[in-house]
Amino acid sequence: MPKKHKQRDTGCPIVFALDTFGDRWSLIIIRDMAIKGYQTYSQFFESDEGIATNVLADRLLKLEGLGIVDKSRDPEDGRRHLYTLTPKGIDLIPVLLEMIRWSVHHDTNTLVKPQMAKRIERDRDGFAAELCERVRERQKR
Amino acid sequence: MPKKHKQRDTGCPIVFALDTFGDRWSLIIIRDMAIKGYQTYSQFFESDEGIATNVLADRLLKLEGLGIVDKSRDPEDGRRHLYTLTPKGIDLIPVLLEMIRWSVHHDTNTLVKPQMAKRIERDRDGFAAELCERVRERQKR
Repeated sequence: MPKKHKQRDTGCPIVFALDTFGDRWSLIIIRDMAIKGYQTYSQFFESDEGIATNVLADRLLKLEGLGIVDKSRDPEDGRRHLYTLTPKGIDLIPVLLEMIRWSVHHDTNTLVKPQMAKRIERDRDGFAAELCERVRERQKR
Repeated sequence: MPKKHKQRDTGCPIVFALDTFGDRWSLIIIRDMAIKGYQTYSQFFESDEGIATNVLADRLLKLEGLGIVDKSRDPEDGRRHLYTLTPKGIDLIPVLLEMIRWSVHHDTNTLVKPQMAKRIERDRDGFAAELCERVRERQKR
């Protein structure tokens, strides 16, 4: 059982958000779940940024404790766990998109495809709703 | 002169954003500048979260190196510096608002006033534009 992760109680919304996903690895895991559709430990582990296994285990437990991530047995392979985003986790997708939008504006080396950049610029809310729906659908399977 | 802060060159927009403001103190300083209108070292230092003076100095230098913050002599008091947000820094306001929106939804102890919460929910883009304009006006003085 994950321990309930301790969150400071300052009432400041920025501090609350940073306490939840301000750690860089946490947000990279959330990105992998929300955008790349990853659901298993080995998918996160093999992700581009090269997260260390102890850090990955720690952050997954922390995110579970914070109610961002759910962990369950894979119905197709009982030895494996599936990680899914909770509604609280899915609700971070608009934050991710806003960060992507900012990076597209300011990172000359961005790998974001022009089509995605345009979509975020023109119809961020529609795109966010679509991504949220895609995650919900994928997690139902 | 601030050193040009080294940013990894992965091309991932989330990594780029986290490298810039993923550090909790950096985003708290940006919040203080964008929302609270703080411009001086002592204002940041006396902010609610109790930042240590060496951490504050380090983060201001880092944010200057990243092109988020400008530092200049206070025309009214030559011994003092004023810190202002660059256009790249002001462009983080929509990210802050999205984080505030998320925290309002998920933090039962949020100190965000209902009026501000409603404004973000109903007219985030208009509110972001208004805040950006307010920062620009304040910094002109």
